[in-house]
Amino acid sequence: VKLARRSRGAEPPPNLTTDPLVYQGGSGVLRAPTDPVPLGAPEWGLDFEGELCAILADVPAGTRAADAEPHVRLLCLANDLTFRNLVPGELAKNFGFFQSKPATAFSPFAVTPDELGPAWRQGRVHLPLRVHHNGQLVGQCDAGEMHFSFFDLVAHIARTRAFTAGTLLGSGTVSNEDRARGISCLVERRMIEQLESGAALTPYLQRADRVRLEMLDGAGRNVFGTIDEEVS
Amino acid sequence: VKLARRSRGAEPPPNLTTDPLVYQGGSGVLRAPTDPVPLGAPEWGLDFEGELCAILADVPAGTRAADAEPHVRLLCLANDLTFRNLVPGELAKNFGFFQSKPATAFSPFAVTPDELGPAWRQGRVHLPLRVHHNGQLVGQCDAGEMHFSFFDLVAHIARTRAFTAGTLLGSGTVSNEDRARGISCLVERRMIEQLESGAALTPYLQRADRVRLEMLDGAGRNVFGTIDEEVS
Repeated sequence: VKLARRSRGAEPPPNLTTDPLVYQGGSGVLRAPTDPVPLGAPEWGLDFEGELCAILADVPAGTRAADAEPHVRLLCLANDLTFRNLVPGELAKNFGFFQSKPATAFSPFAVTPDELGPAWRQGRVHLPLRVHHNGQLVGQCDAGEMHFSFFDLVAHIARTRAFTAGTLLGSGTVSNEDRARGISCLVERRMIEQLESGAALTPYLQRADRVRLEMLDGAGRNVFGTIDEEVS
Repeated sequence: VKLARRSRGAEPPPNLTTDPLVYQGGSGVLRAPTDPVPLGAPEWGLDFEGELCAILADVPAGTRAADAEPHVRLLCLANDLTFRNLVPGELAKNFGFFQSKPATAFSPFAVTPDELGPAWRQGRVHLPLRVHHNGQLVGQCDAGEMHFSFFDLVAHIARTRAFTAGTLLGSGTVSNEDRARGISCLVERRMIEQLESGAALTPYLQRADRVRLEMLDGAGRNVFGTIDEEVS
């Protein structure tokens, strides 16, 4: 979001760092980690978005960030797929994302936060998200570089209403200030290309493209298993 | 929406009549027809919104309006509650409604469309929605005056993704051009007051207010039972 706004020459909104940008996604259809991903119409511009995801216990309305930890019961990975070229039209309508958001894919395993040991602290997972696109390592951003922690996000979503056990709460795309860490979504690279060369060169996903998301702990163990998808 | 835009002196967007405004609501918590409705903070401005709601069968991605009828399996009523004073801030963020939308309440019964006889035609329910606020009949708008039919709405939501059986698809607040039919939400009356007298006079819901929604068929039968809620 920051990059996108900068590239349009606009200042970010004053509350960007104090008020999380959260949308309600669909939950009727969830995608398994190796399900083929339909390309849709090629002009919709399918992109991947590598994210952490918290699975919540029941959350009462009004839960505060300081009280949120016991409500985060499991963590997993998600590929929050997006049709990028449908986003501007939906943003212009002010009603949020809808057609631009096909079903999200999830990692094969979810783990309790204690399984992460010291990598889970202050409501963040301090491990790199390894992202491969067509066999090439394109990102290993630190998922701990998250402006709002999962506890902050729980407090945000529960400000006016309760949530049921099993609620899936995404972190937003994992992204780092340090560009050398790479990307967790193609649009971030396209924004950088736009800024540096005046044109976005990397195309969005094509048929037969592969996306692979995983997270290794300090001992090199694959914590959540691998999301490994082919675009069909 | 139309009234709101007119009152701001702005023209409606050119695609208002061709592109439905649909948002994704929460489904984790659903409210029973007589559950007390929490007021929340009084300054959030709780409002009711009387709607028809279709309950869908599995809907494949790409379903067209002409093929949508078999996917509409049940119809019911809904009170799509809204914290009106949280809406402007959320619209400004472009990510859609989230904190402004507490859990929706549903009628005690859902019926198959054939139970409505001739009142169900072209994907619309041609019956008045009777709305009582604190015992006073404030609206009996014809729910058939719906710009987009449920078939149009199915095609819109399924443009890029599939939906599971049990998906709840709301009509949007029932509203008529003829002001004599009254209202199905307080903000509509407030907009009219604003236009006619320069100030919105009707307050939003207060503690101990009652909202009653029901729909009688041609023979006077209460088709879906009654949503009858007290604000607590």
